[in-house]
Amino acid sequence: MHYHNLILPNNYINNEWATSKQSLAVYQKYTGELLANVSIANEKQVDMTLQTSHESFKIFKKFSVEKRAAILTQLHGLLKQHKDAFADLITAEAGKPIHYAQNEVQRALHNLEDGIRQTYIFSGHQISMDYLNGKGKTAYTIRVPAGPVLGITPFNFPLNLALHKLIPAIAVGAPIILKPAPQAPLTVLALANLLKQTELPKGSVNILLTTNELTQKMLEDERLRVFSFTGSDRIGWMLKNKAYKKKVFLEMGGNAATVIDASADLKRAAKKLAYGSFLYAGQICISSQRIYVVNSVFDKFLQLFLKETSAIKSGKPFDPDVVNSSMISDNDVRRIDKWVKEAVEDGATILCGGQILDEKANIYAPTILTGTNDRMKVWQNEAFAPVVLIESAPDFKTAVRMANNSRYGLQTAVFTNNFDQVLYAQKEIEAGAVIVNDIPGFRIDSMPYGGIKDSGVGREGAYYAMHDYTDPKLMVLST
Amino acid sequence: MHYHNLILPNNYINNEWATSKQSLAVYQKYTGELLANVSIANEKQVDMTLQTSHESFKIFKKFSVEKRAAILTQLHGLLKQHKDAFADLITAEAGKPIHYAQNEVQRALHNLEDGIRQTYIFSGHQISMDYLNGKGKTAYTIRVPAGPVLGITPFNFPLNLALHKLIPAIAVGAPIILKPAPQAPLTVLALANLLKQTELPKGSVNILLTTNELTQKMLEDERLRVFSFTGSDRIGWMLKNKAYKKKVFLEMGGNAATVIDASADLKRAAKKLAYGSFLYAGQICISSQRIYVVNSVFDKFLQLFLKETSAIKSGKPFDPDVVNSSMISDNDVRRIDKWVKEAVEDGATILCGGQILDEKANIYAPTILTGTNDRMKVWQNEAFAPVVLIESAPDFKTAVRMANNSRYGLQTAVFTNNFDQVLYAQKEIEAGAVIVNDIPGFRIDSMPYGGIKDSGVGREGAYYAMHDYTDPKLMVLST
Amino acid sequence: MHYHNLILPNNYINNEWATSKQSLAVYQKYTGELLANVSIANEKQVDMTLQTSHESFKIFKKFSVEKRAAILTQLHGLLKQHKDAFADLITAEAGKPIHYAQNEVQRALHNLEDGIRQTYIFSGHQISMDYLNGKGKTAYTIRVPAGPVLGITPFNFPLNLALHKLIPAIAVGAPIILKPAPQAPLTVLALANLLKQTELPKGSVNILLTTNELTQKMLEDERLRVFSFTGSDRIGWMLKNKAYKKKVFLEMGGNAATVIDASADLKRAAKKLAYGSFLYAGQICISSQRIYVVNSVFDKFLQLFLKETSAIKSGKPFDPDVVNSSMISDNDVRRIDKWVKEAVEDGATILCGGQILDEKANIYAPTILTGTNDRMKVWQNEAFAPVVLIESAPDFKTAVRMANNSRYGLQTAVFTNNFDQVLYAQKEIEAGAVIVNDIPGFRIDSMPYGGIKDSGVGREGAYYAMHDYTDPKLMVLST
Amino acid sequence: MHYHNLILPNNYINNEWATSKQSLAVYQKYTGELLANVSIANEKQVDMTLQTSHESFKIFKKFSVEKRAAILTQLHGLLKQHKDAFADLITAEAGKPIHYAQNEVQRALHNLEDGIRQTYIFSGHQISMDYLNGKGKTAYTIRVPAGPVLGITPFNFPLNLALHKLIPAIAVGAPIILKPAPQAPLTVLALANLLKQTELPKGSVNILLTTNELTQKMLEDERLRVFSFTGSDRIGWMLKNKAYKKKVFLEMGGNAATVIDASADLKRAAKKLAYGSFLYAGQICISSQRIYVVNSVFDKFLQLFLKETSAIKSGKPFDPDVVNSSMISDNDVRRIDKWVKEAVEDGATILCGGQILDEKANIYAPTILTGTNDRMKVWQNEAFAPVVLIESAPDFKTAVRMANNSRYGLQTAVFTNNFDQVLYAQKEIEAGAVIVNDIPGFRIDSMPYGGIKDSGVGREGAYYAMHDYTDPKLMVLST
Repeated sequence: MHYHNLILPNNYINNEWATSKQSLAVYQKYTGELLANVSIANEKQVDMTLQTSHESFKIFKKFSVEKRAAILTQLHGLLKQHKDAFADLITAEAGKPIHYAQNEVQRALHNLEDGIRQTYIFSGHQISMDYLNGKGKTAYTIRVPAGPVLGITPFNFPLNLALHKLIPAIAVGAPIILKPAPQAPLTVLALANLLKQTELPKGSVNILLTTNELTQKMLEDERLRVFSFTGSDRIGWMLKNKAYKKKVFLEMGGNAATVIDASADLKRAAKKLAYGSFLYAGQICISSQRIYVVNSVFDKFLQLFLKETSAIKSGKPFDPDVVNSSMISDNDVRRIDKWVKEAVEDGATILCGGQILDEKANIYAPTILTGTNDRMKVWQNEAFAPVVLIESAPDFKTAVRMANNSRYGLQTAVFTNNFDQVLYAQKEIEAGAVIVNDIPGFRIDSMPYGGIKDSGVGREGAYYAMHDYTDPKLMVLST
Repeated sequence: MHYHNLILPNNYINNEWATSKQSLAVYQKYTGELLANVSIANEKQVDMTLQTSHESFKIFKKFSVEKRAAILTQLHGLLKQHKDAFADLITAEAGKPIHYAQNEVQRALHNLEDGIRQTYIFSGHQISMDYLNGKGKTAYTIRVPAGPVLGITPFNFPLNLALHKLIPAIAVGAPIILKPAPQAPLTVLALANLLKQTELPKGSVNILLTTNELTQKMLEDERLRVFSFTGSDRIGWMLKNKAYKKKVFLEMGGNAATVIDASADLKRAAKKLAYGSFLYAGQICISSQRIYVVNSVFDKFLQLFLKETSAIKSGKPFDPDVVNSSMISDNDVRRIDKWVKEAVEDGATILCGGQILDEKANIYAPTILTGTNDRMKVWQNEAFAPVVLIESAPDFKTAVRMANNSRYGLQTAVFTNNFDQVLYAQKEIEAGAVIVNDIPGFRIDSMPYGGIKDSGVGREGAYYAMHDYTDPKLMVLST
Repeated sequence: MHYHNLILPNNYINNEWATSKQSLAVYQKYTGELLANVSIANEKQVDMTLQTSHESFKIFKKFSVEKRAAILTQLHGLLKQHKDAFADLITAEAGKPIHYAQNEVQRALHNLEDGIRQTYIFSGHQISMDYLNGKGKTAYTIRVPAGPVLGITPFNFPLNLALHKLIPAIAVGAPIILKPAPQAPLTVLALANLLKQTELPKGSVNILLTTNELTQKMLEDERLRVFSFTGSDRIGWMLKNKAYKKKVFLEMGGNAATVIDASADLKRAAKKLAYGSFLYAGQICISSQRIYVVNSVFDKFLQLFLKETSAIKSGKPFDPDVVNSSMISDNDVRRIDKWVKEAVEDGATILCGGQILDEKANIYAPTILTGTNDRMKVWQNEAFAPVVLIESAPDFKTAVRMANNSRYGLQTAVFTNNFDQVLYAQKEIEAGAVIVNDIPGFRIDSMPYGGIKDSGVGREGAYYAMHDYTDPKLMVLST
Repeated sequence: MHYHNLILPNNYINNEWATSKQSLAVYQKYTGELLANVSIANEKQVDMTLQTSHESFKIFKKFSVEKRAAILTQLHGLLKQHKDAFADLITAEAGKPIHYAQNEVQRALHNLEDGIRQTYIFSGHQISMDYLNGKGKTAYTIRVPAGPVLGITPFNFPLNLALHKLIPAIAVGAPIILKPAPQAPLTVLALANLLKQTELPKGSVNILLTTNELTQKMLEDERLRVFSFTGSDRIGWMLKNKAYKKKVFLEMGGNAATVIDASADLKRAAKKLAYGSFLYAGQICISSQRIYVVNSVFDKFLQLFLKETSAIKSGKPFDPDVVNSSMISDNDVRRIDKWVKEAVEDGATILCGGQILDEKANIYAPTILTGTNDRMKVWQNEAFAPVVLIESAPDFKTAVRMANNSRYGLQTAVFTNNFDQVLYAQKEIEAGAVIVNDIPGFRIDSMPYGGIKDSGVGREGAYYAMHDYTDPKLMVLST
């Protein structure tokens, strides 16, 4: 394994490694082996982080487009050099199947490429105002960074979701403080090693783990002006109300629904959805969690789906064929097991799976439930587990209504070849995105990604986050 | 006076007049005469408001562009019919000089015209994604209303600042609850009379006064998804942290600075700034409060400015020549008088004014101070009074630094004919807008308007607010 | 009839009526009654037109957005006042059924409304160039009128197609010379009467009929910089090569195809297509001329289509129920009669119609042919007559191929509820627009309208033509 | 020298080398040494070129964004490998000073980078039409290639100006036929060697030299739909009128003017302008040819300018310090010598230069004239030689008028620190671009580049040319 060289147990503050007394143990998720004891930044370090972000802003915001693009290009080059090691580290600390960890690193590289493009192209607008008091004036906006950013990122895409905050920050010249997930912080900390080799000004990227109290301190600090969070909705909404004087962007999860019409290519849908439901133990914000199939093809689709599910390999994450591996913690395995059991008690039927496959390694079996209802946790909450519901609906419109029956609205998929239904979905589906004839988990990193309802506010993707991290400054010129 | 017919003492909920036991007395600001006892909505009424907004959303969001534009056109026609009465009512309840109240109504009409234009033109974007997993897919966004809006508006432009929230809400099909300022709520309530005559669906616009507790209840209600506030920064930031699960937009004040270079047309600058400093007793978010003049022309400019100031007429607001009239409350007159006195004690000199002109009518004299420093309230706070500081600076760059020395950043003006300085201002001035060779108070309602630092987040102007009140819904099409 | 007051037999040059010796007789198309002998501008007048356009440009290009929008608003008001008379005049001189002439005037008003909106909103772009030699520079474009425009318009929408050139010209401050169709010039000349009452500067709009030689002189004159033509492709391509030093935009006709799949709502398609095939004797650039139906529903659709066609009323144009009336000339009736006969000789079958209904009034019967092939004139040429082909195709893809089998490509319609096919049509159809589930004749005047292949270059619709009639002027600012 | 390996004497048709009997001798411009006898394509080869372009279009237009970007990336990599050899070849065949030839290759690489970015980002627009007949419809445009392109390019930037046509063609999937300048065709032919190594489909890029007659044949061929020309205006306008059924874009030269105000940094202006006037013997479309200085600083500027000019090194192009070297032909040296003499006869004074420096190598001395008038060829024509006029003007506005006194309008520079003048220049200067405080020769390849008046129509820069080489296809969706 190549990842050991990448492991750094310290925080990265003002371009230096910061060590502290308090630490957090980080384990290999499949084997349980200890990977590192990572420092937990103390109050003084957090203060320093805030101050260096603040100071760095004065310098970084004046960097030219060329220089900011060059830094992203440097980072791209460095990450490319270490891509195997990063994939291995992700698999180790996050339990992500290795083929999918490699895919994450590849996406991170594409994400950087998109960020470089956007850096070159980003600009303000001309403002037409040759009328009323504006007569004869020339006006335009330029985009200026709103201020230092605080980014909090989750364990499941430790590299790429951190980059979804880091790239736009660098792209616009805004310093950023990244706080990675305690379950899998090593990847982001390893990134610091690369960042140190770029021309980033001191303090423009700080990475640290710290306590909840000190995180709240950062949230309340007025010197930071943007807060971007990816994580659970419960935490996200709560933090939003502490993010004093900050623009707040929240990318929270969902319980992604899929609607399947009789006109769909069922075989293709089944194959894609099996992968999209169980990949990485369903620990993806837009993992397929709820499938609603119109009556007439329910049985047929179910057979296909069961067959495809049976081909999903569970096991150790470094096996290149494995799709479903360790969940992030034993707590989570126990939680999902309990949810499934509760669902069964309330009337649901297990069509496959429904049990823990490997207690030690926290692997839960790919599980399909039916007979569920909207009071069950497996329906209304985010499962973040290899569990999917499948229910039949009398017709397409009812299926859409069932899909909308959720407090979330991130991405919803529709499989159909009926054009009426496509336009109906466009109008009626309540989600940040409607994916027609692909899984709800479809994403390329340049697209606007984000949700409505409890799934959050704001959109990620370099171009969109660059707008969020900046303000327009209006110039009104006349003599 | 035509305004009496417009006065309505009730709240407007679900297209009906809602009366309650608790009420608030609203006075003519110059004469002190009682205009109305306006109902304060009770808890049941607030609940009803929330529920009707919620219900109305389901209907209103499906209105076509054509229908939404038609409603704005209807409102425009009705307001035009009653424009004199509205101007009179504004003058009566807000103490605004009548020529400026008439100007406000005219702006409101232009604001509606812009809103109608934007309604027709508003749209999403094509998303290029014919690469990676997106290969072969067609993708675009449509803009969908984020949900019902809560709008809180101030007393100083009771009509037009309410329209700055109402127009984008109608334009995108989002219901809105408007809470006008208690000092001058009659104008917005009078608007209800017009709205009732349009094709707006029931409950899509509710207007009510209520208590702080019940306002907080609305802020915390999850059914509202957007909160747009215009008012003081202290209140605004505080409310932001209670606006649970809402997108928040704050247009708060400033202490607008102006920088004057030796190359400027001093006479024109002096004339414009005298008007821009004392108009409506300085009760304008972008009223000119701080002027920094480069040394070499300080004396010359000062003489011109004093002369122009001496021509500013103070007195009763219905006099068409009056520029400076009653402040909104005796508290505010006493407050500014105290601030000026404190400044003098701390070393400032009064160059003109510096006293209450009319105790009964709350008129404060147009006041120019010099010798101030950044610890004084008249420098660092928002004066919202006919008080302006004028200081000399060794050079242009220092003057810019002095202008930036503020926790606010809404609009800053620069008078210069030096092109270097124009580009320097573009780079260095910390504000939402840089106005070159016009007053900081320059605004046409279609432009992006809003600030940075403590002046807020978000931009008003129909086009910009329409983006804020909507989310992009991404459609990804493939077979 | 109200139209007599509108008739003006003179040209309109430099805001004056210009009369000349040579004239052209214009007739009522249904009755044959003489409407007017219209002057044909002589060489001196054409020279004056060119010179006044040139002179006017210097003044007009400096008009503010506000003033240009005001002029369009004035024109809108005036046209609205005379809308009935204009509709009557169109019916009289162009033989257009009165309900459709009224529709044209209504569209013209909407067209003006869109033009006013676009005038306010039109602007250049920010240019990102903070890299390489552009580092530190601010750059943006402003849109400046390219110069005076020469517009040549056809008889079939004498008002609205002239406005499609007039509106963008006024919107951007470009003078325009309009040359209406000799068959129906009175409507455009009547417009002069309205234009005279606006604040347009002298010579900014000139309207004249003239000889082919003098038209060519205008085409070759370097003082005109834009040439916008609507008419037949043969003439258009020929004129393009004489339009010396001009930007050239050609909106030429087509032989619009429609593809009908088994999944379509056949009844609705039949109803819409019968109207879209025979309305105004098919004298519409996007009149439905070729219909390709998938085999399985060919018979069913044909029955429906025949039934709907039988309900199409032919007769005098002032009858409000008439859909098909006089063709523009007896030459054209004879031409189409000959084409139909040739087709029959070559194997085609007449399913209905196929003869002249009223020799004197030049009315041709609504005609449906089948068994046609691509060598026939009724397939490959633009029929501009109430004639439509209907053929069956083995499948949807073949039907698309048949639709593409044409040297034209303006608008093509597809009736289907199959989503695969919608995306297939998006990829494969060769046309300026693909209309899904509506007739090829679908148009709202704000949309981009224009073709590929022999149908032309450029797009009309105020926003698009405003771009065509202007150039970007790049400002690169630095110190 | 590395360039010999690059020399290929054949045309490149359908991915093969095509040789013919007729040939053209290409010489080293400084030494006169024969570099190659290049084939002149015969009629059969031209026919094949047209046909393969036509065939290739069917395939190439379906290439995904990803594939097109990949091809540009491959070309970038290959060009980078050979960058020294390409620079040497440019210097050899075009007589371009080596430091500037190296700069051209570097720009070509940046041009490709920009093209790659734009390929990823290019897209259509959403069309708002939820009103009138469009109610309920979804509409958007996609950009489709207009058809095969014919590109004719000049000798002076043999690589980069060819890329300005090649890049957008590849970027949008349009085949292109490139016809390089006969004076210096080797660079473009050498490019074929690289193109052959990419994944470009057969026939999508053809490169050939041919006769004028056969060029005209290509211009008239309907299978080509876009004609993009860079060269002299006389030729350009003439070809435009033969470019049957094509969209035409002309980038022709100018006689670029510079206006200098008293407020400018004269030293910096003098230094930049000396380089911008004599670099590459002035054989640059935006070479500084006319300088107008306000009276008060005329003498001072002139002294500075003469001093800077005296530092310009003339001599052999492979000398890294040389700025002014061989002109493209002895004809051109004789022509400019004659123009200068005629000017002197008509009253002009030679301030420096004014003679041939090296007869054999066709080097003309850096020449400054004064006392010129607008009837002289050195004023009104494009000099394309190391000759610059300098005249004084009573004031800035007059200087602008003198600058505008030209049938060209490509790029005009203004050196000033007076903001009034900047805005005056924005309004009044007649050119495609106004460069404030830099030379008229300022260009980065991503910016919109092109002129008005006799300087042409259309704008180059990948983004702009990609729009020119495509048409919008409107999709109107409804059920």
